[in-house]
Amino acid sequence: MDLDFVTKLVKKNNSKIVLILLDGLGGLPIEEDGFTELETANTPNLDNLAKKGICGLQNPIENGITPGSGPGHLGIFGYEPKKYQVGRGVLASNGIDFNLEEGDVAARGNFATINEEGKINDRRAGRISSEKNKELCEMLCEKIKLQGVELFVKTVKEHRFLLVLRGKGLSGDLYDTDPQEIGKRPFEPKGFSNNTEKTVSIVSDFLRQAKEVLKNEHPANMVLLRGFSQKPNWPSFPDVFGLKSAAIACYPMYRGLAKLIGMDLLETGETIEDEFKTLENSWDKYDFFFLHVKKTDSYGEDGNFDAKVNVIEQVDKLIPNVTKLNPDVIIVTGDHSTPSILKSHSWHPVPILINSKYCRPDNVDKFGERNCITGGLGANFPAVNIMPLAMANALRLDKHGA
Amino acid sequence: MDLDFVTKLVKKNNSKIVLILLDGLGGLPIEEDGFTELETANTPNLDNLAKKGICGLQNPIENGITPGSGPGHLGIFGYEPKKYQVGRGVLASNGIDFNLEEGDVAARGNFATINEEGKINDRRAGRISSEKNKELCEMLCEKIKLQGVELFVKTVKEHRFLLVLRGKGLSGDLYDTDPQEIGKRPFEPKGFSNNTEKTVSIVSDFLRQAKEVLKNEHPANMVLLRGFSQKPNWPSFPDVFGLKSAAIACYPMYRGLAKLIGMDLLETGETIEDEFKTLENSWDKYDFFFLHVKKTDSYGEDGNFDAKVNVIEQVDKLIPNVTKLNPDVIIVTGDHSTPSILKSHSWHPVPILINSKYCRPDNVDKFGERNCITGGLGANFPAVNIMPLAMANALRLDKHGA
Repeated sequence: MDLDFVTKLVKKNNSKIVLILLDGLGGLPIEEDGFTELETANTPNLDNLAKKGICGLQNPIENGITPGSGPGHLGIFGYEPKKYQVGRGVLASNGIDFNLEEGDVAARGNFATINEEGKINDRRAGRISSEKNKELCEMLCEKIKLQGVELFVKTVKEHRFLLVLRGKGLSGDLYDTDPQEIGKRPFEPKGFSNNTEKTVSIVSDFLRQAKEVLKNEHPANMVLLRGFSQKPNWPSFPDVFGLKSAAIACYPMYRGLAKLIGMDLLETGETIEDEFKTLENSWDKYDFFFLHVKKTDSYGEDGNFDAKVNVIEQVDKLIPNVTKLNPDVIIVTGDHSTPSILKSHSWHPVPILINSKYCRPDNVDKFGERNCITGGLGANFPAVNIMPLAMANALRLDKHGA
Repeated sequence: MDLDFVTKLVKKNNSKIVLILLDGLGGLPIEEDGFTELETANTPNLDNLAKKGICGLQNPIENGITPGSGPGHLGIFGYEPKKYQVGRGVLASNGIDFNLEEGDVAARGNFATINEEGKINDRRAGRISSEKNKELCEMLCEKIKLQGVELFVKTVKEHRFLLVLRGKGLSGDLYDTDPQEIGKRPFEPKGFSNNTEKTVSIVSDFLRQAKEVLKNEHPANMVLLRGFSQKPNWPSFPDVFGLKSAAIACYPMYRGLAKLIGMDLLETGETIEDEFKTLENSWDKYDFFFLHVKKTDSYGEDGNFDAKVNVIEQVDKLIPNVTKLNPDVIIVTGDHSTPSILKSHSWHPVPILINSKYCRPDNVDKFGERNCITGGLGANFPAVNIMPLAMANALRLDKHGA
């Protein structure tokens, strides 16, 4: 759905919408005829929300397409993920609160290990410590001289860093230099649109000098770059939906995404309890809350079925802390599936429940993948329509046409 | 679906398609875990059609979007409602059988009450009688002199009238002057595209003179205008689908819509029985019948659950009068939902059944919202695909491609 189309219909009232996003929520059974992580979890509170609400499976992008975290979230926020694309560089800069200026080019970097032939042995340089990373970033910044641009190299975490080039006439339309494969040489920088020559030449120069500076820093003796990008000029979420909006997330990536679309970032702690506590404490100040739970995805990626089940149960126990606040609309879903058996994001549609006074009841009384297939939202609900539907349930949309 | 795409595949035969449209059909339970209006209604005949046909929930525009009557109908007729937008002015002119010419600008007017400060006290001037309205329209027509355009002011009903300006170089791209809020002054006319200056100046002149003419006519001492628009140049329904098409509707708005897309308007009476009788009487003359039942929506808007149930049951009793004619395809659906509990149009998808010899059976044996979720058409069937599917069931579409 076009954001413009929705924005024209927006009206304001005092209703509140809560989006509880369990990252990588959807799963798969590990045994034939077995249950998924969500189906296995004991979730009386989510089941109760499902029973009184409307359920379904939502499709983050399109059938068969596995979303990264960026597109997975953007879709749910109403931003068509194939139209609103954001590079890893920009996301990384948001994640560490680096203030990207218009025209800056950002890229996500990895410290990596190459052998004498220049081929990659380890794309993550043995996951060096963040302290070591910081030391190396400072060294790169200090020793590398680039003509006509200002250089920033900032630590993200472990082997990850942020590269920013600031200057005139730069472009973000460069391919990754990270081949994402061991035994290969890093790619030479290369543009995929017009007017990338200047940036390509500066990045080549940066890489040449970085290799020289790092030559005695084994295992971190090389850098790989991906996600070259520039700050996008998107409509802000609070403007689009007329919602004073807060993000409660502890991971930089998701804070970055929320910031990118103009949500306020609330300070919160490291645990899920902390996040729910933050929601309660800020209840009066916002119309919309995005509460992000990371560990469902992390354990999925680790292949740890039981731990993922456990996180879902932890969230379930905290649901009454939200329902007692009487939100007008509660949405529970994920940005994509991360089945433990695959140890990665997947293309499977994601269970969703929407609970409000005005949901038309369906026959789903348990929140799980199989049950959601026959929910009122259907088995293939477009993620970008979640926000419009939530807005409708909050009675925040006028009708279209006479 | 593109109308062009369908038209290329159209072939003719002697089959007949009947669309029975219960305005605002979809509903909601009034009690938790209760039934909707349609689920409550005793509908043995509709259930029988559902059992032998295919069911689902259709989505008039997009998830979460509440359709006005115009878009709600246009979608079902196959016209993508976000592409084919029609203003209130044009609809009003159609509704009272005013023959709009190409280039005319039409607007829907309200007689309203303003106070000494010029602020609106009542947007409907106490719903003056249609007789009084007629008197005022004639007075406005007679006394107002506009340069270079011909003026028409025609009674619609109660406080509602139609304004038409006829002349060269006019534009329909004007904002409403009706602020739709009490205590505000009417807006000055203003255009939202190029080349609106002439029209803006004429409308301003009209309003200035109308205020003068009406100054002693309290409560109808001002006019508010909305939905400035010009007759659209759309493909006609009979041409698009190759169907000789008749509309059976007693309300002006729906007669207007049907006329706008080129259907023949059949004379009919005020009751649902009259409408079904008209269908029978004209059976041999048309390929396609659109039969519109208004009261389901009216009672929904009134919040009268039981009366809405009753209208559905009335329609059910008349279904055998249609089935005995052996139509090849029967479609039963609504243009949107109007849950009594909301007293307004809503975003909820609308139950639909399609009955033909060639429907693939599903497991739905009762026509109701919950049952339709698991019908063969799914829970999110796009309204614009209803006509192509009906055409297919009437064996009136060739295959696409070799």
